[in-house]
Amino acid sequence: MKLEIAVLPGDGIGPEVTDQAIKVLKAIALEFDHMFKFRIADVGAVAIDNYGVPLPEQTLTLCASSDAILFGAIGHPKYDNDPSAKVRPEQGLLKLRKELGLFANIRPVKAYDTLLDKSPLKRHIIEGVDISIYRELTGGIYFGKKELSGDGNMASDLCQYSREEIERITHLAFEAAQNRRGKVTLVDKANVLETSRLWRKVVTEIAKQYSDVEMDFLFVDNAAMQMILNPKQFDVILTENLFGDIISDEASVIGGSIGLLASASVGKKYAMFEPVHGSFPQAKNKGIANPIASILSAALLLEHFELFNEAQMIRIAVDKSLKLHISTPDINANYDTISTSKVGDFIEDFI
Amino acid sequence: MKLEIAVLPGDGIGPEVTDQAIKVLKAIALEFDHMFKFRIADVGAVAIDNYGVPLPEQTLTLCASSDAILFGAIGHPKYDNDPSAKVRPEQGLLKLRKELGLFANIRPVKAYDTLLDKSPLKRHIIEGVDISIYRELTGGIYFGKKELSGDGNMASDLCQYSREEIERITHLAFEAAQNRRGKVTLVDKANVLETSRLWRKVVTEIAKQYSDVEMDFLFVDNAAMQMILNPKQFDVILTENLFGDIISDEASVIGGSIGLLASASVGKKYAMFEPVHGSFPQAKNKGIANPIASILSAALLLEHFELFNEAQMIRIAVDKSLKLHISTPDINANYDTISTSKVGDFIEDFI
Ligand SMILES: CC(C)[C@H](C(=O)O)[C@@H](O)C(=O)O
Ligand SMILES: CC(C)[C@H](C(=O)O)[C@@H](O)C(=O)O
Repeated sequence: MKLEIAVLPGDGIGPEVTDQAIKVLKAIALEFDHMFKFRIADVGAVAIDNYGVPLPEQTLTLCASSDAILFGAIGHPKYDNDPSAKVRPEQGLLKLRKELGLFANIRPVKAYDTLLDKSPLKRHIIEGVDISIYRELTGGIYFGKKELSGDGNMASDLCQYSREEIERITHLAFEAAQNRRGKVTLVDKANVLETSRLWRKVVTEIAKQYSDVEMDFLFVDNAAMQMILNPKQFDVILTENLFGDIISDEASVIGGSIGLLASASVGKKYAMFEPVHGSFPQAKNKGIANPIASILSAALLLEHFELFNEAQMIRIAVDKSLKLHISTPDINANYDTISTSKVGDFIEDFI
Repeated sequence: MKLEIAVLPGDGIGPEVTDQAIKVLKAIALEFDHMFKFRIADVGAVAIDNYGVPLPEQTLTLCASSDAILFGAIGHPKYDNDPSAKVRPEQGLLKLRKELGLFANIRPVKAYDTLLDKSPLKRHIIEGVDISIYRELTGGIYFGKKELSGDGNMASDLCQYSREEIERITHLAFEAAQNRRGKVTLVDKANVLETSRLWRKVVTEIAKQYSDVEMDFLFVDNAAMQMILNPKQFDVILTENLFGDIISDEASVIGGSIGLLASASVGKKYAMFEPVHGSFPQAKNKGIANPIASILSAALLLEHFELFNEAQMIRIAVDKSLKLHISTPDINANYDTISTSKVGDFIEDFI
């Protein structure tokens, strides 16, 4: 297969982990006789430095003309503590999601056998957990009108959802459940929010078309608690943008490290693959960043093009590296820690 | 001391747990020679049944003419799955908060020594945790304009904050930190939300007046993760309404059971005390509801009137009951479980 892959390494540890994913994809191409072409572009703080904007026109054009996008991470502390900054790295990511119509963010959460004891949660709580989170990604309070009064003393953000925005991701979530354990849990705050009540109404209607899928509802506050008390109750979680942001980061502790979690953001035409972790600027260029999340993003990319054997090969290599403790310090406290690129090398060689 | 206490038992397990708190307060009055007068009124689903509205006028008047309010719980499943219900129990609670100006909800989160092994989190993660969450309670998306389009296909909720709303709770949080370990963590989503950027700006300004308090910021998604990975890093958490709802329910797992957590909602003039748990309708009238959260709410009430010895007496009695496993099934799986009212009786007798 021929694939043109846009690579957006971004900020902080983004470039170093993305390098490992590329290494691994090249090994796969060699082994399985594919043609992967990588084209690199700037996004985030680095794009602001180079072009004055977090998502330069040429980056967007490149993405739109590629088969898939491999994303690193964005964010830089110099913007976080400056509430008055007009241009911010995150705008690049948000704009990319919006412009490419990547309306569903899919985050698999699994407890790795080899890492069960790494989690702050007890073994019997997380053993066997296997959740797929479907987070709406181009609507809600992220994209609603934002206002700051002239005197700077009053601010607002509008959370808005249309039936259509809810429908399209709901279908994806129910289809996913059909191929899994057949359960969808909608996380909302329908006892307070009008948008949540619309979600509940639309999802209830659509659920009727999937009689083989069981459906339940959970208020987001309760869901945040249940995720820790009993994560095994979840199969597919469906939720709006902001709740999905919070719940999926929380769920990342189940796996033992956020450094292992990959995600896919998909739309009608485009698809982007990225680690769940952020740019982690403190770790930049120290060789301590865990590349597994980025490498598993590459596996999700391959699965998107139905290259299942290839993806499986990556997963086997990753499991092997974990078993042999060929890992970065976040998950390897008791062994010699291995650098970011050495982990990539091992997985490349294995393939 | 003479106190007129409005009691709003509400729905589900609300009445049975509130009964235990009253029992305990009566014992305290006897022991310390106080005059507590209790006046009971309806709120929530039961008020809808009796009066057609979740917060009848006479309930509000009673609260406004009392020294403090003891609240049970509200909520009934018949409203949750009906997105079109115009009248809902939760409106009663929200209106009460708003009308009485209860702008700060304060939730202490502690790991009880006797319950350390009850938590889904590992002992070394939670041992010694002592957090106080300051959640803004009368602003944000809870109270912003809600709209549903005529055709029912588009819904919105407005999240709004003014400088003044942020300032008053921020002062409370910093004052609390001065009497604790001297640290305030603001939880927000300033990389996306305009309201969060206003929070960050205002809080940063106010922090300068408290040079003995250290201050840091955490995005809410990261905070949801850090609460599990390393809750000991937190002293006072300050946050807006919706984030506070999610984070404080999540934090409840640290204590081993949400059945132990009490909260105070305070304003300029009024103060209300309530368990963090909800109405838990499945458990209603089964004698299995844990009354400790309600009893500890009574302790918070006493502290509010500077009756520190009295409150301390309740805490000692509660600790004793936990040590002796005089507890409801949620925290007592390995022992004979004791009913809601028997737990209340024990604590009453002890006092
Ligand atoms: C960087 C930020 C804008 C982003 C989000 O909130 O969506 C991130 O937290 C994520 O989850 O991808
Ligand atoms: C019942 C509900 C409206 C309420 C809230 O969200 O504030 C509850 O969850 C709470 O935290 O007191």
